[in-house]
Amino acid sequence: MAKRALPLSKVYGLIEPGPVVLLTTAHHGKINVMPMSWHTMMEFEPPLIGCVVSGRDFSFTALQATQQCVLCIPTLDLAEKVVACGNTSGSRVDKFNAFGLTPLPATLVDAPLIAECYANLECRVVDSQLVEHYNFFVLEVIKAWIDPACKDPRTLHHRGRGVFMVSGETIKLPSKMK
Amino acid sequence: MAKRALPLSKVYGLIEPGPVVLLTTAHHGKINVMPMSWHTMMEFEPPLIGCVVSGRDFSFTALQATQQCVLCIPTLDLAEKVVACGNTSGSRVDKFNAFGLTPLPATLVDAPLIAECYANLECRVVDSQLVEHYNFFVLEVIKAWIDPACKDPRTLHHRGRGVFMVSGETIKLPSKMK
Repeated sequence: MAKRALPLSKVYGLIEPGPVVLLTTAHHGKINVMPMSWHTMMEFEPPLIGCVVSGRDFSFTALQATQQCVLCIPTLDLAEKVVACGNTSGSRVDKFNAFGLTPLPATLVDAPLIAECYANLECRVVDSQLVEHYNFFVLEVIKAWIDPACKDPRTLHHRGRGVFMVSGETIKLPSKMK
Repeated sequence: MAKRALPLSKVYGLIEPGPVVLLTTAHHGKINVMPMSWHTMMEFEPPLIGCVVSGRDFSFTALQATQQCVLCIPTLDLAEKVVACGNTSGSRVDKFNAFGLTPLPATLVDAPLIAECYANLECRVVDSQLVEHYNFFVLEVIKAWIDPACKDPRTLHHRGRGVFMVSGETIKLPSKMK
């Protein structure tokens, strides 16, 4: 997909609706990717995102060691690949290769963007206070990319056990909220 | 709406897709409600939910003081009321009365359920370590209620500035993920 830099002030609009994201890491020359749904915005700008990465996930070690990742937002056409990434471990499988995802170099972190995702957020860990108790990392988004052609992304929203809600219609109401 | 107790092990499936919730509080004999989109699951069971409540919000003081709240999940039919709650402050308006929301007594907390919401989660604050830096509270859900008739809720997902994505179709894929 075409990629254009997105102002950091607009990142919250991508994460706030709650889409499944793919978290990529690079560690010891090996790239990996896992799906994640336990995340939330924590600040508008610079954009902060809190997320839980299980200690059982291969990505946990890479995130801990490198303090960097990319959050990539997939759309409905990637649903089977997202689930395949969740069903396997990066300790045994090169998921990019196995599932046909294309890594692209990021600008500020070693973890890769995913070419097939409509948005990619380069992140670094800025707070690990709650990692020990909850595996909860606070990330700062330091560079954001979006496919400008994708105006109404059909994002995936996990309801548990492989059931996903797919984003539907958009409505606009007169709101004072940011 | 009819209400049935929901096993706590199933709460994550309500929050993980990222719906807008209404957070209710009760403090000094006054109930209040505000919309919130910055939240994430942090543990399956007991269910933990992390959320950001701005220090500018009237609800922040009540949540800090009482360490209790209810998270209520509205559907599309309540969209105008949700926005109205966000456009006003509980310091000046009795929002339940002004916007036609019906408070119901909860069982384990003083904050009210909302009769019109299809799901209601009674919560207590269990960790405030990140409140000072990020206004981030960790809540434990101690009682959950659901309308058993509402199988496919049309939840609201905020994209910013009054634009909401409404939940669309549901798909199921063979997943090993919980």
